[in-house]
Amino acid sequence: MTLLNLEARINEISPASDEWLRAAALHQNNLTKPPRSLGRLEETANRICAMRRTLSPEIQNPSIYIFAADHGVCAEGVNPYPQEVTRQMVLNFLRGGAAINALAQAACAELYVVDVGVAGDPLVDPRLLSRRIGPGSKNFCCQPAMSLEEALAAISLGIECAETAARNGATLLAGGDMGIGNTTVSSALTAAITGLPAEQVCGRGTGSDDAALGRKIDAVKRAVALHADAKHPVQILAQLGGFEIAALCGLCLGAALQHIPLLIDGFICTVAAVLAVRLKPAVRDYLIASHLSSEPGHALLLNDLHLEPLLRLNMRLGEGTGAALAIPIVRAAVAAFTQMATFDSAGVSGAH
Amino acid sequence: MTLLNLEARINEISPASDEWLRAAALHQNNLTKPPRSLGRLEETANRICAMRRTLSPEIQNPSIYIFAADHGVCAEGVNPYPQEVTRQMVLNFLRGGAAINALAQAACAELYVVDVGVAGDPLVDPRLLSRRIGPGSKNFCCQPAMSLEEALAAISLGIECAETAARNGATLLAGGDMGIGNTTVSSALTAAITGLPAEQVCGRGTGSDDAALGRKIDAVKRAVALHADAKHPVQILAQLGGFEIAALCGLCLGAALQHIPLLIDGFICTVAAVLAVRLKPAVRDYLIASHLSSEPGHALLLNDLHLEPLLRLNMRLGEGTGAALAIPIVRAAVAAFTQMATFDSAGVSGAH
Repeated sequence: MTLLNLEARINEISPASDEWLRAAALHQNNLTKPPRSLGRLEETANRICAMRRTLSPEIQNPSIYIFAADHGVCAEGVNPYPQEVTRQMVLNFLRGGAAINALAQAACAELYVVDVGVAGDPLVDPRLLSRRIGPGSKNFCCQPAMSLEEALAAISLGIECAETAARNGATLLAGGDMGIGNTTVSSALTAAITGLPAEQVCGRGTGSDDAALGRKIDAVKRAVALHADAKHPVQILAQLGGFEIAALCGLCLGAALQHIPLLIDGFICTVAAVLAVRLKPAVRDYLIASHLSSEPGHALLLNDLHLEPLLRLNMRLGEGTGAALAIPIVRAAVAAFTQMATFDSAGVSGAH
Repeated sequence: MTLLNLEARINEISPASDEWLRAAALHQNNLTKPPRSLGRLEETANRICAMRRTLSPEIQNPSIYIFAADHGVCAEGVNPYPQEVTRQMVLNFLRGGAAINALAQAACAELYVVDVGVAGDPLVDPRLLSRRIGPGSKNFCCQPAMSLEEALAAISLGIECAETAARNGATLLAGGDMGIGNTTVSSALTAAITGLPAEQVCGRGTGSDDAALGRKIDAVKRAVALHADAKHPVQILAQLGGFEIAALCGLCLGAALQHIPLLIDGFICTVAAVLAVRLKPAVRDYLIASHLSSEPGHALLLNDLHLEPLLRLNMRLGEGTGAALAIPIVRAAVAAFTQMATFDSAGVSGAH
């Protein structure tokens, strides 16, 4: 895909429907409850009606895509875990032993694991979607993380995953990430997008000590200075991103193209979502913020998106765990909207 | 049941186990995730291990008991909805048209509707547990809401419901309420328990306007002054409570007796929980705060219990809706704890 092709594609994205949003809000007031007493469940259901252009939305086959990739910036000593953990965790996902496996199963959601660029030899497993762009990104402290072509290929993959999910009947999508070093990458992207200083957008990720946090801040500063020329979102993704983040950006674009709500997970997914919204502002209409991670950059990005997270549980694991946890909340919001009786049908008296 | 019988019974309640709590925390650190990265899910799973005295807790047959009753204080014009809505909503629960029906179904939870004292003729329906103490409480602005015997009978009913649920294999309980006027009752109880002024503990409930809120505050002030002699929790419940609140207090005691976690819902359930904890402090160990309601007294009571709610979704519906919504969160917390691989078993490297 060329940049022109991508731009043509995302021009097809249309905003969610204001008319359906208003119709949904009117319907809420007829349901047997005091007005607005279901709080954010009402807002969530109404937004989904607006995305899906219906007053009978359904949550079918919720599908979580975890994109896994490695990051050249690990050479800067930014992470307490060795890089091989990306690969080991992909194997753990495939065997069902990770947190996201338990949470996806508890949420009755489908889980897809996509190798977009794990370092080393290609992993071969029938349960793995092997869609490698390369064996990890380059160290962006010295050179662009990837070429523009690679970034476009990863975005295109994300769009394709949303299309496949829609074809399989999914009406709710969620993104997840695995990639040792990717909070550093997300911090660099956040600094580049927002102009905020590295100190403000870097956190402890998987658990960096002060020394590793110092190296992380330093790496982000050097990377942002080196790639200060990047202005277009795809260029920023190529120079400072990672394969899984580019794919997640594509998943957001694809969800919007398919009029499917997408639950964004933590810091990594949210930076991908912000880049998708920079590419096409209407994408925001299809995003639901699942949770607030304890990674400091996350709140800044959700603020940028004007999205309020559903959950605040001090989680910071990634893998799509926050998004998986929000699936039952979204399901409950839609169930209340579509299954509740009205005051008239139930013969319940309204307020004086 | 006499007060002496009740006191003997609740003396059997033992605190959750510190040893199992520590063992659970150690186990969390072996699971394939950065330490503490599942945030409040870890704390929740660990607490359930401590309640259940096991490292293999299960969430089976989560059961929601909604207790419905009417309140004499409605005569003071404290509520925008007519009192007959209690009865109408019970019928709505039985037909499956209320918010709690949708949310319980979405959470794969059993829902039990108990008539503890709905005004008018007894409701007859095979799906209803008819355990009436009387046709609603008295107006506590003029007299005690109920006799001590009635309060004890309602508490005893709640204990019995927890026993029945345990016998049916439930390992997670939740309480819900229905009773027009019961935020006024809960505000009066909160004022009596905490000593806080009526203005601080009264909110708009189902949606009172300024005039109705004024009548509510006035009714609470008069009631608290009239029943200032009540000091024992059961006496407070009898003079200022309601049948459903006394039953919910019993459900908390029963859950603790059965070593079963109980999800407390909003303001009404939480005031019942506080009274149960006043009767026996170890009850607190078995309570999980599901959500923070927008009713102002709720935060004060959760603070009193030193419990942090899992959800903050601006809900204020009651019926157990907040508790139902937290069931999938608790299920996910336990699923992650019991299903995840360890670093050793999965061959995943730990931090440097």
